[in-house]
Amino acid sequence: MKIYVLRIGHRPERDKRITTHVGLTARAFGAKGFILAPCDEKILEKLKSVERRWGRFLEIIECTNSPLGYVRRWKKEGGKVVHLTMYGMKVDDAIDEIKKSNPQRLLIIVGAEKVPWEYYEHADWNVSVGNQPHSEVAALAVFLDRLFEGKELYREPEGAQIKILPSRRGKEVVDAAEESRGTEEGTL
Amino acid sequence: MKIYVLRIGHRPERDKRITTHVGLTARAFGAKGFILAPCDEKILEKLKSVERRWGRFLEIIECTNSPLGYVRRWKKEGGKVVHLTMYGMKVDDAIDEIKKSNPQRLLIIVGAEKVPWEYYEHADWNVSVGNQPHSEVAALAVFLDRLFEGKELYREPEGAQIKILPSRRGKEVVDAAEESRGTEEGTL
Repeated sequence: MKIYVLRIGHRPERDKRITTHVGLTARAFGAKGFILAPCDEKILEKLKSVERRWGRFLEIIECTNSPLGYVRRWKKEGGKVVHLTMYGMKVDDAIDEIKKSNPQRLLIIVGAEKVPWEYYEHADWNVSVGNQPHSEVAALAVFLDRLFEGKELYREPEGAQIKILPSRRGKEVVDAAEESRGTEEGTL
Repeated sequence: MKIYVLRIGHRPERDKRITTHVGLTARAFGAKGFILAPCDEKILEKLKSVERRWGRFLEIIECTNSPLGYVRRWKKEGGKVVHLTMYGMKVDDAIDEIKKSNPQRLLIIVGAEKVPWEYYEHADWNVSVGNQPHSEVAALAVFLDRLFEGKELYREPEGAQIKILPSRRGKEVVDAAEESRGTEEGTL
């Protein structure tokens, strides 16, 4: 199943950091594409620089100023759509149905503040990660983590210049270009 | 196991929204306390207002300007400490150990940018939720979700004025004060 994340309602001034976290979370938790609406080149450039340095997980990093058109095209081409919302059905019920449906392509819509009604209608699944107010970053991470049953973490991206090795104490960082390993301790 | 979340390195101007998301995520995913360092009354007030409206999950919402002292006291009183960091040990290994250790009180430290070395040393577990850069909000959510094995979502807080019922389409909101249920559709 190939997953893209569509972030809608982004407000460049207000949402810069939250949207960056949404993009990085999409990448780290198993998505293959990130689409931002409306366009904000700074966010895309940030994600691209993470891909260059940390390795390639994303095949698409792009933006659109007509996100509803993007969703309609996605569905016309046979893709399915999840919309994350605190009003949606329970996440485990949704994931059971998604797995049975086993779509080749799944688009996950992540809104900022109020999401226009059309997205609720276009979504094959309106999904809540709990019915309490929290964070779209948390919702996306937990949705993907549960969908992939925890297997998406610690994958190895291709072409990484830098890599971290899990460590109880300190920071173990591998410089993939030099194939050397440095351990920093007490020098943070 | 009683869990508190300590957010350190908060910069009031820059981190306002991310720190709010950290606090709301702590609340929604099963923590019983949220401590902010340094102090920022606006964030605490926001969390308190969510507790008033959505119900009580948190027994402590407070701040400190000496977070390292807070951690030392916590340990002196027998509590255990997790520090979430992309450099840490793998989350599943850590959770296995935490469950075996079964501490009565667990403090989860969530940093902003660079975290001083002392926190790595004081932590009983330095834990990574993946070794890729993403978001402290995502890390906290997934750590708690895995620790509680998914059972923390959809708990019912006490004293809620408002409640959302999971729904495939639309928004089902219960006004707990009036005990009436309103369904909004197409009016978003």
